[in-house]
Amino acid sequence: MTKGLLIVYTGNGKGKTTAALGMAVRAAGHGLRVCFIQFIKGSRHYGELDAVKRFDGLIDLHVMGKGFTWKSENLEEDTRMARRAWDFACETIASGKYPLVVLDEFTYLLHYRMLEIAPCLERLNNRNPDQHVVITGRHAPMELIEAADLVTEMQAVKHPYTSGIKAQRGIEF
Amino acid sequence: MTKGLLIVYTGNGKGKTTAALGMAVRAAGHGLRVCFIQFIKGSRHYGELDAVKRFDGLIDLHVMGKGFTWKSENLEEDTRMARRAWDFACETIASGKYPLVVLDEFTYLLHYRMLEIAPCLERLNNRNPDQHVVITGRHAPMELIEAADLVTEMQAVKHPYTSGIKAQRGIEF
Repeated sequence: MTKGLLIVYTGNGKGKTTAALGMAVRAAGHGLRVCFIQFIKGSRHYGELDAVKRFDGLIDLHVMGKGFTWKSENLEEDTRMARRAWDFACETIASGKYPLVVLDEFTYLLHYRMLEIAPCLERLNNRNPDQHVVITGRHAPMELIEAADLVTEMQAVKHPYTSGIKAQRGIEF
Repeated sequence: MTKGLLIVYTGNGKGKTTAALGMAVRAAGHGLRVCFIQFIKGSRHYGELDAVKRFDGLIDLHVMGKGFTWKSENLEEDTRMARRAWDFACETIASGKYPLVVLDEFTYLLHYRMLEIAPCLERLNNRNPDQHVVITGRHAPMELIEAADLVTEMQAVKHPYTSGIKAQRGIEF
């Protein structure tokens, strides 16, 4: 038996987005089309943007949101943007063009209650049964974990920031 | 302060090799050269092999070992092969050609005592101070975790094999 998996990478450790990026290039390596939607990291300078260019036509990357975080002074506007981003994700999933869709850092929109969980899960559960969806981000809600087929929690055992080493180009971004 | 990091992805969950692959393509996206050494997975059909071809000249992939596992009837031969693989890794690290070297599934060689930990750590600690090394695999020994700058433990929260769904092309390999 094979079926499209709902995969969640959560937890406070490093490697969630990185694992999703690895899945995207592995799938593209098999010739499968991937849509990688970043819900948080708005910077245009991340190495992943340059990396996915190498898979022209196979990996489409879309950056939603407006920067490092969705939290602003204006919760109403944030919520409106979150809904727009989710609508885009739903259209992408429903388009049938992508055997794999990555919703990177999507958990935050659920965690901060910018979206209601139940209708989101309904949309995810009603997708094409062969389609894989990967969701990353801290604080994955329990309902999402229950709905998922594969869940890995990345636990931070040791982190270099605590030793005064800053994030480095090509490694962390 | 920046410095070459020793990064370890361990734990029983999915995403260790995948995160290492993501790091490789992100670094290559920044134009950094990467050597990705697979110590276990000998199959030539993995999607990562096709994926890294897109980074011709930036990501070199070497498959050591002889298949899915090192465990055989002949421990002496396994140990000899493990040492040869490690020697190759040491030469790669010392060559100075690669800002990032990935030792994928390397922990098994330490866990099964095919290599002694202390001299391995000495070689890793004496590498070029700007060079990043990523090590993946279950059962990372405590000495390795102590020597590392960044350690993430991938914990399996939920795994589809337990629901009777088999590994799928483009997703798990």
